[in-house]
Parts: sequence; structure tokens; C-alpha cells
Amino acid sequence: MEYRHGGNAFEYGKKILDFSVNINPLGTPLAVKKAVISVLDKIEEYPDYKCTELRRKIAEREGVSPEYIVCGNGAAELIYSLMYAVRPKSAIIHTPTFCEYTYAVKASDGHKGTILMCAESNAEERAPCVEFICNPNNPTGTLTERAEIIQKLETTDRLIAVDECFNDFLDEPEKYSCVNLLDRYKRLIILKSFTKMYAIPGIRLGYLMTSDTELINEIYKARQPWSVSSAAQAAGLAVCEDTETPVKTRKYIKEERAYLEMEFERLGIEYMRSSANFIFFKAMPGLQKKLLEKNILIRDCSDFEGLDAGSYRIGIKKHNDNKKLILALEEVVRCQR
Amino acid sequence: MEYRHGGNAFEYGKKILDFSVNINPLGTPLAVKKAVISVLDKIEEYPDYKCTELRRKIAEREGVSPEYIVCGNGAAELIYSLMYAVRPKSAIIHTPTFCEYTYAVKASDGHKGTILMCAESNAEERAPCVEFICNPNNPTGTLTERAEIIQKLETTDRLIAVDECFNDFLDEPEKYSCVNLLDRYKRLIILKSFTKMYAIPGIRLGYLMTSDTELINEIYKARQPWSVSSAAQAAGLAVCEDTETPVKTRKYIKEERAYLEMEFERLGIEYMRSSANFIFFKAMPGLQKKLLEKNILIRDCSDFEGLDAGSYRIGIKKHNDNKKLILALEEVVRCQR
Repeated sequence: MEYRHGGNAFEYGKKILDFSVNINPLGTPLAVKKAVISVLDKIEEYPDYKCTELRRKIAEREGVSPEYIVCGNGAAELIYSLMYAVRPKSAIIHTPTFCEYTYAVKASDGHKGTILMCAESNAEERAPCVEFICNPNNPTGTLTERAEIIQKLETTDRLIAVDECFNDFLDEPEKYSCVNLLDRYKRLIILKSFTKMYAIPGIRLGYLMTSDTELINEIYKARQPWSVSSAAQAAGLAVCEDTETPVKTRKYIKEERAYLEMEFERLGIEYMRSSANFIFFKAMPGLQKKLLEKNILIRDCSDFEGLDAGSYRIGIKKHNDNKKLILALEEVVRCQR
Repeated sequence: MEYRHGGNAFEYGKKILDFSVNINPLGTPLAVKKAVISVLDKIEEYPDYKCTELRRKIAEREGVSPEYIVCGNGAAELIYSLMYAVRPKSAIIHTPTFCEYTYAVKASDGHKGTILMCAESNAEERAPCVEFICNPNNPTGTLTERAEIIQKLETTDRLIAVDECFNDFLDEPEKYSCVNLLDRYKRLIILKSFTKMYAIPGIRLGYLMTSDTELINEIYKARQPWSVSSAAQAAGLAVCEDTETPVKTRKYIKEERAYLEMEFERLGIEYMRSSANFIFFKAMPGLQKKLLEKNILIRDCSDFEGLDAGSYRIGIKKHNDNKKLILALEEVVRCQR
């Protein structure tokens, strides 16, 4: 079977209004764009494979030791490097969730048959077992309480990988982040990304945090040295100076989420109440194609494990774009009746 | 042991004259820099994970089918992805050579003990076995004849991975490249990089070619989808339009190589005759430190498997820089006597 990934707006040409991605609708901060231009002076040098300066800045921002941090070419790279470093015999993945956890777990044993437990299981586990928790969860936008994660860390031997890539979009990020638990639990791993909040998916920058510095060393050994480009490192340094964007964005997302939910209710569309910058909903199969005829791309989630045809996700965009989506949905829904 | 890589000029500050890297001394072509700036318009979009346009352009340039190509975040990423896809039981690596082959082979079985045969071996091999051939070889600059590679493909069952990352710097690149053998041998894999010739190590772009499209599919599954950033794809497209740089560079490198070899002979420094844009030589242990006092960084190759203290490599730089190196070497050699 040919390799494919679900979200791929580039296949549909340029004029498409792309709701399939979960990127900050307010766009890339100017300072980050300037930082990428400044990279032209460093383009002829290899990137610092240790990301020394960037890790120091992220450490300040997160309130952890720089030794706890490894940067990556997007959080996605780190999911794979982590799995190649750990090589779990089994994995617990709470479907529906971000597909790359499953793909990375399977890749780590050469697709030979790691045991995947897609929901909570009481089966006797043989170490090493890893559990992924996407918080807030992609594609549903739902939350896992910190207490629940602490309980898992206290009562199991599992490595708990908490993906907080969308945490910055929550109304109360600190209430749900597990970063301040890192010192207490060596088996806690946190994944974060600058891609979503700072709208730099074209540049790629994520990081992983754990107090298990031996594991960090294994992650370095599991991948090439220079995976984080100079452009990504420069963008990351600029991001670390920017505290305004998340505040502004949270307010904007909160308002637009309320607007979209109100409209979904008016249209009788069944959606899940989201805490993040995207909304998951159910509608008739074939909706993606119908909206594409109107040059709007939404994420068809039927390829997520545990989901059927008729499952969709939209990223929250700017108000005018959101209005266009609602208008298009209204037309499609009306035709259907 | 803490993870380390040999070449890391960034540790020594900015004023250093860096001979430790093998980058085109003529620098990044202007069109490539412009392409990176143009990326600012695409920074908010995910990169095309299939690198469709870039693969088409590279295919034209190389005279192969786009289906034979997978792009990567530098050739180094592809060495790891290839090993994770193949998971060889054993590997033949001709030391001294680029360290990442060994690291990637070891990583691919979780450092459990793949059999590494560092020189040619008559041992009965169990498939899959992979053999790496760096051509021209890093750090020695020596060549492997095409006939020898063809013989390996004809007489063994091995996967032959030929690293042609420095092929562009040869006086006669076509004479040594194996690209036109791809159709004939499915077990032939060629690695190439735009990093060296177009001086974009800070951006990262490499590609792998094979007519085994099943293997390409496995490589995609062994890594994250978005490893090639939009910046790298834009730079690559600009590079594909540029046929002038390699011609100009080959002429320049040939002259400077002759100059450096002449001076090495005058100074009585034992060097290997190189076909590439770098020169390997033997001198007293401690030379790297002595040159660092003069703000010159050379590559200490004693961490290459098969090499001892007193093994060094320099990348060929611009004439004035090369003169500075010779002057510094002369001073050190004179003090020693």
C-alpha cells in the first residue's frame, strides 16, 4: 500500500480555504519571520546539533533544566525517536487520537507486531510499555485531568508520554500541563511543539522533556545529529521572546470556538465540546467532498483508528473564514434535507 | 556516555576559521538564499510531505523516475530511515568512513549487536546484509571504481548503499556515479545531498534513490511525514535550476587542492591524494589544539573507527583561507622541530 497521510491541502491547489490543519489563525509573528530571514547568515554553517542556546531559552520558559530537553524537527520526529529509543513491547493508545503514535510504535519494531492496546486494559504488562496521552486530545479537543495522569504514574510502571502540543490553546494551560511533575516522575515524558501556536509548520520545531537524562541520550543516539535546522533554531529563539501571542490567541480562539459551536447547534450538527483550537463533529459521509466543491477543505477523520465515515475535524480560523465555513455547511445541510 | 559528534565549530565561538566542515567554499548561491526568503509566504502551511515538485525536479536532473526518489532532512536522516526500514542483521562498513553509517546500523537494532564487518569479509552472510560505500570516501577522499560496485551487486545478495554526497566535487562526476545503474539493480541505493555543493547545511536537504519502490515505501513508514521543511524544499527547487555552481566549484576545488597538496609536500606533511573537496592527512597528535590557539579549527579524525590520534581532515576553503592554514601549519611544524 502506498504511504499516505490524511492532511494534505497541497494536493488540492492553492485557492483552497484549509480547515484541515490546526494552526494558529492569527499567523506567524513578525519577529519569527524576521528570525528566519536572519538565518541566511548562518545557512552555510551546520546547525548546533545540541541546540544549546535554544534549549536554554526553552528551559527558562518552561521552568525546567536544559538537561531535560531535546529539540526535534517537529514533535512528530520526537515521537519516532522516542519509540526507537524505548522499543516498547506494548503500547496503550486512547483512540481516536493523533495517528503518529501508532505509526511510530509499529515502526519501532519494524512492523512486526508490538502489542497495541487501544483503550485502557487490565492485561498484565511486560515492561517497557508506553502509554500516549494527547492532552488536549487531537482530534476531539477533550482533556485529561492531571490527577488521572498522576494516578497512572503512581500505580503503573508505564512510560507515560503526554503530548501537550495543543496545551497553549487552552483557556487555562497551567491547570492541565504536567511540566511541573517532571522532577517527581522519571517515567513522565512531555511532548511540545511551536508549530501550532506560532504557525510555523513549514519550519518545524518541537521538543521533548523528561527528567530521565539517560533516555534523552538514547533519543540522540536513535536519530541523526542535525535534525533541527538553523532556521528552526532561529525561529525557536524568537518564539521564546514572545509571550504575547499565546495570550492574544487564547482570547481569539475562545470567542471563535463559541461562535462556531453556536452555529453548529443552530445547524443541528453533532459536535464534541472542545477545549482546543479545533472542533470534532459528526455529519453525513461525503461532506468533505461536498465542501471541496466550494473550495473548503476539512479534515475527514475516518482514517483515525476508532472512527467511522462521517467523522470530521476543523481547525478554528479567522472569523471571516469561519463564517464562510458555516455558510457552506448551511448550504450543504439544506440540500441534504 | 554523553552523546557527542565530532564536528562542532559552534562550541568554539564565532571568529574561528572552520576547516572542519566539507562545505563549498564559494558559498550559498544567491538564488537559493532568495528561495529561503520566499518561504516566508509558505511558513504557515505544512510542507508537502511527498515533496512532489522537488522530487520531479530532482528526477529530471538525475535522469531517473520521481518514484525512485525520497527526500530527507539531510542525507543523514535517510541513512537512519533506511536502516530502520531494512533492519540489517549485519553490515559491511569500510573504515575509516563517515561515522553515521555505524551509528545508524547500531540504532536500527536498538544497540543490541548487529554484526558489523568493518572490512571486506568472506563470512557467510544471512540476509539482509547492507554494505556502505562512501564514494568519494569521507574522510580520505579516495574513490571506488564503478566496476567494483557492479561486481558486488552481481556476486552478492547485499543491499549496496552508495553515498555520493561528495560526487559533485569530483573532476569527472559521471565516471564514478552509479545513478544509471539504478534500473538494473534493485539492491542499489544511492544517497545524495545538496548540503555540501550548495552550502546549505543550516537548511538540510538530501535524497535517496533506488528502483526498489517497496523499500521507499518502508522508508516513509519508518519516519515522520514532514521531515523535509518548506525551507528545504524551496532551497532544493532553486538548486535544481542551478547547473553553474558545480562547474565553477569543481574548477576552483581542483586548483586549491593542487595548491594545498603542493604546500603539504613542501612542509613534509603526509597526506592522502584526494579526489574530493577535502584532504586527509597525518600529523602529530595535538595539532588540532595547537591550531585552535591560532583560531583555526581542523577535524580531528581520531574518533573515526580505524583511525588513531594524529589523523586529520581539512575541507578545502577559499584561497586566502587556505593560505592562512598553510601559514599556521608551517609555524606549528617549525616549532615542533
